Amino acid sequence: MYLADETWPDLGAYFEEESLAIVPLGSTEQHGPHLPEGTDHLIAEALAREVAERTGYLCTPTINVGVSPHHRQFHGTMWVDPSVFRDYVESFSRNLTYHGIDRIVYVNAHGGNVQHLQEVGRRLHETETAFAVEWMWDESIPDLVDDLFAQNGPHGGPKETAMIMHIAEELVHADRLEDARDGGVPSVDEAGTMKFGARTFYDAADNTDNGVLGDQTDATPEKGEELFEAASEQLVKLCEWIDDQPFDDLMPEPHVRDR
Amino acid sequence: MYLADETWPDLGAYFEEESLAIVPLGSTEQHGPHLPEGTDHLIAEALAREVAERTGYLCTPTINVGVSPHHRQFHGTMWVDPSVFRDYVESFSRNLTYHGIDRIVYVNAHGGNVQHLQEVGRRLHETETAFAVEWMWDESIPDLVDDLFAQNGPHGGPKETAMIMHIAEELVHADRLEDARDGGVPSVDEAGTMKFGARTFYDAADNTDNGVLGDQTDATPEKGEELFEAASEQLVKLCEWIDDQPFDDLMPEPHVRDR
Amino acid sequence: MYLADETWPDLGAYFEEESLAIVPLGSTEQHGPHLPEGTDHLIAEALAREVAERTGYLCTPTINVGVSPHHRQFHGTMWVDPSVFRDYVESFSRNLTYHGIDRIVYVNAHGGNVQHLQEVGRRLHETETAFAVEWMWDESIPDLVDDLFAQNGPHGGPKETAMIMHIAEELVHADRLEDARDGGVPSVDEAGTMKFGARTFYDAADNTDNGVLGDQTDATPEKGEELFEAASEQLVKLCEWIDDQPFDDLMPEPHVRDR
Amino acid sequence: MYLADETWPDLGAYFEEESLAIVPLGSTEQHGPHLPEGTDHLIAEALAREVAERTGYLCTPTINVGVSPHHRQFHGTMWVDPSVFRDYVESFSRNLTYHGIDRIVYVNAHGGNVQHLQEVGRRLHETETAFAVEWMWDESIPDLVDDLFAQNGPHGGPKETAMIMHIAEELVHADRLEDARDGGVPSVDEAGTMKFGARTFYDAADNTDNGVLGDQTDATPEKGEELFEAASEQLVKLCEWIDDQPFDDLMPEPHVRDR
Amino acid sequence: MYLADETWPDLGAYFEEESLAIVPLGSTEQHGPHLPEGTDHLIAEALAREVAERTGYLCTPTINVGVSPHHRQFHGTMWVDPSVFRDYVESFSRNLTYHGIDRIVYVNAHGGNVQHLQEVGRRLHETETAFAVEWMWDESIPDLVDDLFAQNGPHGGPKETAMIMHIAEELVHADRLEDARDGGVPSVDEAGTMKFGARTFYDAADNTDNGVLGDQTDATPEKGEELFEAASEQLVKLCEWIDDQPFDDLMPEPHVRDR
Amino acid sequence: MYLADETWPDLGAYFEEESLAIVPLGSTEQHGPHLPEGTDHLIAEALAREVAERTGYLCTPTINVGVSPHHRQFHGTMWVDPSVFRDYVESFSRNLTYHGIDRIVYVNAHGGNVQHLQEVGRRLHETETAFAVEWMWDESIPDLVDDLFAQNGPHGGPKETAMIMHIAEELVHADRLEDARDGGVPSVDEAGTMKFGARTFYDAADNTDNGVLGDQTDATPEKGEELFEAASEQLVKLCEWIDDQPFDDLMPEPHVRDR
Repeated sequence: MYLADETWPDLGAYFEEESLAIVPLGSTEQHGPHLPEGTDHLIAEALAREVAERTGYLCTPTINVGVSPHHRQFHGTMWVDPSVFRDYVESFSRNLTYHGIDRIVYVNAHGGNVQHLQEVGRRLHETETAFAVEWMWDESIPDLVDDLFAQNGPHGGPKETAMIMHIAEELVHADRLEDARDGGVPSVDEAGTMKFGARTFYDAADNTDNGVLGDQTDATPEKGEELFEAASEQLVKLCEWIDDQPFDDLMPEPHVRDR
Repeated sequence: MYLADETWPDLGAYFEEESLAIVPLGSTEQHGPHLPEGTDHLIAEALAREVAERTGYLCTPTINVGVSPHHRQFHGTMWVDPSVFRDYVESFSRNLTYHGIDRIVYVNAHGGNVQHLQEVGRRLHETETAFAVEWMWDESIPDLVDDLFAQNGPHGGPKETAMIMHIAEELVHADRLEDARDGGVPSVDEAGTMKFGARTFYDAADNTDNGVLGDQTDATPEKGEELFEAASEQLVKLCEWIDDQPFDDLMPEPHVRDR
Repeated sequence: MYLADETWPDLGAYFEEESLAIVPLGSTEQHGPHLPEGTDHLIAEALAREVAERTGYLCTPTINVGVSPHHRQFHGTMWVDPSVFRDYVESFSRNLTYHGIDRIVYVNAHGGNVQHLQEVGRRLHETETAFAVEWMWDESIPDLVDDLFAQNGPHGGPKETAMIMHIAEELVHADRLEDARDGGVPSVDEAGTMKFGARTFYDAADNTDNGVLGDQTDATPEKGEELFEAASEQLVKLCEWIDDQPFDDLMPEPHVRDR
Repeated sequence: MYLADETWPDLGAYFEEESLAIVPLGSTEQHGPHLPEGTDHLIAEALAREVAERTGYLCTPTINVGVSPHHRQFHGTMWVDPSVFRDYVESFSRNLTYHGIDRIVYVNAHGGNVQHLQEVGRRLHETETAFAVEWMWDESIPDLVDDLFAQNGPHGGPKETAMIMHIAEELVHADRLEDARDGGVPSVDEAGTMKFGARTFYDAADNTDNGVLGDQTDATPEKGEELFEAASEQLVKLCEWIDDQPFDDLMPEPHVRDR
Repeated sequence: MYLADETWPDLGAYFEEESLAIVPLGSTEQHGPHLPEGTDHLIAEALAREVAERTGYLCTPTINVGVSPHHRQFHGTMWVDPSVFRDYVESFSRNLTYHGIDRIVYVNAHGGNVQHLQEVGRRLHETETAFAVEWMWDESIPDLVDDLFAQNGPHGGPKETAMIMHIAEELVHADRLEDARDGGVPSVDEAGTMKFGARTFYDAADNTDNGVLGDQTDATPEKGEELFEAASEQLVKLCEWIDDQPFDDLMPEPHVRDR
Repeated sequence: MYLADETWPDLGAYFEEESLAIVPLGSTEQHGPHLPEGTDHLIAEALAREVAERTGYLCTPTINVGVSPHHRQFHGTMWVDPSVFRDYVESFSRNLTYHGIDRIVYVNAHGGNVQHLQEVGRRLHETETAFAVEWMWDESIPDLVDDLFAQNGPHGGPKETAMIMHIAEELVHADRLEDARDGGVPSVDEAGTMKFGARTFYDAADNTDNGVLGDQTDATPEKGEELFEAASEQLVKLCEWIDDQPFDDLMPEPHVRDR
């Protein structure tokens, strides 16, 4: 069920039965010479909408702009400052609870959002407002990602390329895949981003000239479909697991003195 | 040109020539028993994308959740607190200027956003960061709106109904138009919201049982098309006018002592 | 009853009987070559004190500095940033409730404060702290204003000039009224401040060389008295209406699911 | 020169010659059974206006509500939270510098404002925005205060009573002076507010049943006049001293490495 | 009992019996040519740990960096902005109450922290979260300080020198005491920091070339021991007094209308 | 060189030659039944002080309280809210640059601080204020940690136990190691904290009854010494590498349009 397409009386029926919401969040940021800047929000939205359709859970509209200052050197990257992003997500999440929502799955497709969504989830958890968890699609299927690609990226690499080939093939510049690979770096390790245990870079532009990592020529629409299907399954299971838990079990443990 | 569909090298060409961005903003909130909750962001997005296509100006992704606490009593309304909304819009607007954008048109379709977008515009103006203006589609064509409808609403009334009939007819519950009219109030005046010069209500639910005003049965897709076309023309002219101004003319006047 | 003139034991008697406070707010900003910068706070204070005397309701001291950045190019204009103003008003309003106040009338005489006072009123309403409404004197008597003046201004125009002639005639430079008229603009429409539906100016200095609009020579002390009397009557009625409502009726409607 | 009474062209002449502003700040809070709640802002305003008249320096309107939570248990006390007060004062002070003001004297008559005004002054100093100092009238004439009264209070005691007798005698309940004295405490020392070096109270109500300290029967209008005259002289000298300093001398010293 | 040295099960026993915590706070800032920059936090920590040992009360780790911008011109001074300091102290103090702490003694050795700790204490008091008081060692023994030293400083003077001689003699540059005295100023009075009742300086560097006041040659380890012993006794008594009070007695008085 | 032990003239010599500061940060939080709550700050401080001594770089005092709400169910855990922590670290870091510091190494021993220190580092980087990096001791020597322990924890496990055995053996309850192991969980994997790709827990108490993970009986002082030595070497190298870089190389890359 997609919230934005429904009327308020029809949504009333959902809230009588269910208290879970799926919220897609991505970014609008450079993804190399071959992928559209909407890559992350397109993936998040496609997965969230698919799973909402399969399960009947409520999916909200997508948050299209996230925490991407580390891609700002490349034309067109949009971003908000981290504290602003956290407050925006916290605000609409808290307000969703006014209607009876008490568990939220943030369907995320941008690494730069992860810690901020977790911080918001913690705030909602500590105040016993709602149980909200961050879910990043590729972290739900790490083995499959490793199986499919020798050099998976991450940013703008073959796994994201394959996903967009599956979701919106017309937006992939197939003729630039080799350039993407040759103008970027093969992997995070080779980018030399760690020194003596410290992460000593702050921006993608510190590591890669065209903004991407991995071997993009390894992507196909078929692999994209396989990833999409596998991730969707994981997300379905996550939603069902959360829905199944008694609310109290999702809330904080008491202080040890009260056990 | 739609930012989210483009790659960063292709966007680079735009920024070399132009410095204007069109940003659609709406809300996700109840629009009565007959219209989808996405009404406002659907309208804003449709107009912004249309005008971007006609003119070649850059359109960003849509901000789907705005300032709608006054509709919260109706299922599904999403909102962020005003200060959070302002900070979110200010943050991505400021960051757009990093790429060379120095004028922004906020294409807005939600009355509750107006003052907040103007406040953000003022911040950007006072700090000489960019010239950003709020544009609300129906305020650009007041005479046409008055001509077409006897009771135009505003919220969830015939003008919005006609627009969605034109943009996404499948989302309109045509069989509920009479109910919408009969269960709401004819006009703001009849809602009795002013007392001795003061606006004494805070929520839509104070005035209307089903959340809407006006005579929805007066809406047709043809009227919607006429509104859409007329508003688009105004927006085209606004963008061109802003683009034509020297940047200094858009920035604050000096103190009178310096004139 | 004027709070600042009373002792705490004497105020205790008021709080036992009543729970309404009248708070005058204005600005200190340029009002052309002929009017004092205190114009707005002088008007707000005069009306609030008058109505408090007539009705017995409690009037607090005046907030003299408001949201006036749009007049900053003219010498002497004082202002605070909008978020600071909102927080200041919210803070003392919340604190008034500690004594039992649960309804507040913001007697306002500055257009730039309107939206901010309404935003504060909304915060107090949503949190069910108090019912606070913004009241702008000239919006309570629009017909009379239109009747009295061909070109009423608004800013620094004949309606404000007449009011100050009535309240503090010694502060009006009667010998500059023609200059005021000739050096300003006749009306908002002629100032050309709207383009294709968007408000494209941010400062008074964008529109008018001397900071004012309207025909100041149309003002007389008699008209001022008439305005003052009529607005006072409206304010008396508003206070009495609010005082008459049961508190629950002033608080937010429940969610539709709870009706 | 009183800013609120002047027009902008007339103020322009001041700003051409001078860059100092006098800002009166007080509180609206209980002052016992005999004094009006406006006591502090009445005193601040009277001194600031007097000195502005004598010297020709610019006096702004008064900030009537300050930091008085410690008097909240007594009817009618108004207050804003400390951080809100600081931000309000900082905001209008910074904005005054837009007109050329670069030195400000906060004429203060409320002990609870002192540290906050000094904190704001420090912010303006550190950022080299302006030189702003807090001045508290009774701290400028400690010997005279001690000479005139055996038990001077401080809060609501004879020195404040005498001042209001001089400034606005009609607001003093002369028939309650003995009650004021007998229902309060003679001095801070006897209030027992310190324990082993720590200040262990937070509210006036912890120490005194009627909100005041000292022997109010010791106050006369003549003593009030003497205090007023002496404090005014100090304030005149302070303004002149500040006006005489080169701006650089008022700004922060360089780092020792740059000396 | 020192919190950082204990395990959580062992701390559980404390929280069953007691609800008081001692928190040492100082600064890291210049203390002249002869004393280490850690002077203030060393003193606070030594006193807090000593008293915790004598009484069995819980002592937390030390907050080493406080509000010291007024010493920034001298190499190495560390500081945080006042609002940041307040929020940091408030946050951990509130969080301590989660374990059952409801009274806190801030053992302070830096004048610049005083008002900020009192402001935090007020916040905790007003919200009835905890009773927290600021305690400054030298203000608990003013007579002894006056007896021991002709010119006691305050900053970097003989009383602090004597304390560090007692606590960590190896950190005192005994060979620089005369230089310290001769390069500084004898006393606050002689620094000329007050003008007509206003404090007209903001930084230590405005008054003293080497950052210190007083006659450092007057310090001895024996005097340091005497100071340390006397202050410790005061602190013991303060902790015991606070521990003895019923919690309700430490909380705010009710409004006078509820008495 | 330890900042808190030095006088300002002696620190001046350092700032003439060097611009790097080492800042130890930890937490004060439960570390099981066998380790002191100060474990993390003890480790951070020991490493930072050791490396400062070896290299001559400047080490500041330790920040003892960090972001530990996830351990709050266990007695004595102290913490500040994440935004407060970030602001505190940012504030003193920015202020250090006043003295000439332009590169900072945050020596961290608490996982919960990592993302927040990186966020602060990013703020300083984006504003070109300083180059600050977060360094976590055990992430600099992952292979050694894996070699030494079968089940390394992480929280309160053998690697931290061994480190404290080396640094402050008297604080380890050696007789509780078996209990620690048996009452906790062997590893993060066995704690079952991930569900379908999402981290579904927020607190340590969700996973472990006594607050710790791993096999504590595997710890020895010798292993602790080996860890300490290896980590110190890494930190020395990191400091030297950062010191060797030209400042411009550490600052952000320009926008691609400016390359």
